Amino acid sequence: MTNWKEIDEKAKIWVREAGQRIRDSFESTLSIQFKSNPNDLVTNMDKEIEQFFIRKIQETYPSHRILGEEGYGHQIDTTDGIIWIIDPIDGTMNFVHQQRNFAISIGIYENGIGYIGLIYDVVHDELYHALRGEGAFMNEIRLPMLKQVSIEEAILGINPVWVTENPRVDYELIAPIVRKVRGTRSYGSAALECAYVAAGRLDGYLTMRLAPWDFAAGIILIEEVGGVVSDINGEKLDILSKSSFFGGEKQFHQQIVKDYINK
Amino acid sequence: MTNWKEIDEKAKIWVREAGQRIRDSFESTLSIQFKSNPNDLVTNMDKEIEQFFIRKIQETYPSHRILGEEGYGHQIDTTDGIIWIIDPIDGTMNFVHQQRNFAISIGIYENGIGYIGLIYDVVHDELYHALRGEGAFMNEIRLPMLKQVSIEEAILGINPVWVTENPRVDYELIAPIVRKVRGTRSYGSAALECAYVAAGRLDGYLTMRLAPWDFAAGIILIEEVGGVVSDINGEKLDILSKSSFFGGEKQFHQQIVKDYINK
Repeated sequence: MTNWKEIDEKAKIWVREAGQRIRDSFESTLSIQFKSNPNDLVTNMDKEIEQFFIRKIQETYPSHRILGEEGYGHQIDTTDGIIWIIDPIDGTMNFVHQQRNFAISIGIYENGIGYIGLIYDVVHDELYHALRGEGAFMNEIRLPMLKQVSIEEAILGINPVWVTENPRVDYELIAPIVRKVRGTRSYGSAALECAYVAAGRLDGYLTMRLAPWDFAAGIILIEEVGGVVSDINGEKLDILSKSSFFGGEKQFHQQIVKDYINK
Repeated sequence: MTNWKEIDEKAKIWVREAGQRIRDSFESTLSIQFKSNPNDLVTNMDKEIEQFFIRKIQETYPSHRILGEEGYGHQIDTTDGIIWIIDPIDGTMNFVHQQRNFAISIGIYENGIGYIGLIYDVVHDELYHALRGEGAFMNEIRLPMLKQVSIEEAILGINPVWVTENPRVDYELIAPIVRKVRGTRSYGSAALECAYVAAGRLDGYLTMRLAPWDFAAGIILIEEVGGVVSDINGEKLDILSKSSFFGGEKQFHQQIVKDYINK
């Protein structure tokens, strides 16, 4: 039987070590923006961090497969066995432009079932983590189960672009949601926005275009505090496919899907 | 002649002390949400912090006047003399819902001219500060002058609600801006969003409804790094009136006002 506690311990050590590498690469939080080409930097760092994880995983767990944003992992068509789904830097634009509000995201699945979710806010040294059935945490603090929230009381994570004309969703479906909720926020990192849902800072996060590495960890965190994830129509997510994404507190999630999307 | 260095030193000490009071009120970053009525808490804290500043200012500078969000200061109709413009907790919804992403904001003006701007991100212990003519800082780090940015490269702070039907602006004017920029973000604290503009994390921040205490400090910070502030039409802000607000890097600001708003 898979020793999930051991994998969890190792994965956390590696994530913190990778975070330290990223922090070391900043001369200071603000000076990085003066390097010649910030886009080169992020590419190098993305690649370096993904390769770091691949080395560690292959040394320790040679039978595990890896699906990474940068493409250094395996070609994966089935959910069989244990798969690490890795985004070395989620929120690339924030990394380049802000040197904050980005995260390392790792979801570990066995036969399609999520066991470990890790989202590490590197700059603030906040590790959001969940092990299936054991609850979710931010560093040492246990995240409470999400409390029922009505649409009128909810804060929704959503990018303004989805309420303008766009090829993925009718903005006239989305605009009434934005007007109805108490507030909206947009942070530019899907992994962090999922972590904020798990931590109760957002009641939901809705977006039209995510890849598996963006949501693999977030799903596990959100479900461990009683939240729900699906595509925008309320359908189950395929952990190997790009998709729209809506995660949130259960009642809020149901109401939005029923009354606003599939009305 | 006014001793601005002395006022600046005292104001910074008071802001950090007020921040410590707020942090002390959190049992932990996450536990606060379980108190019986979060809205009571924020009201009490808002009031307590504003009264704290008023006591300090009146003891030390009895001739100075105070304009505070909570209304404990003076009734102010003219910009004569020295005025402290205070928002004890900017980003109230974040304070209640997230226990982060709020700030203490203080702008100090003499005869309508801004001299001191302080925006304190309490939870992250980041004090953004500027003294007229001396540049702007985050804690000890000097913020560099803003670099020219085109619309296509820019990250804009804007709430999604302004690209849905609303009583303050034609959303069809705003939507093309959201589609044209590289990215948009929304943090829910005007003061922090101004500080992020000053720190180069956002290239602009646009909103349709702010009060003097929301932007009094932000104006000074943004101007000290070469940025520009105005209302949405490019007109000068009145430091005593509610208004729309657009602050940002100079070229980006000019292009948006000329090509998208006053086209």
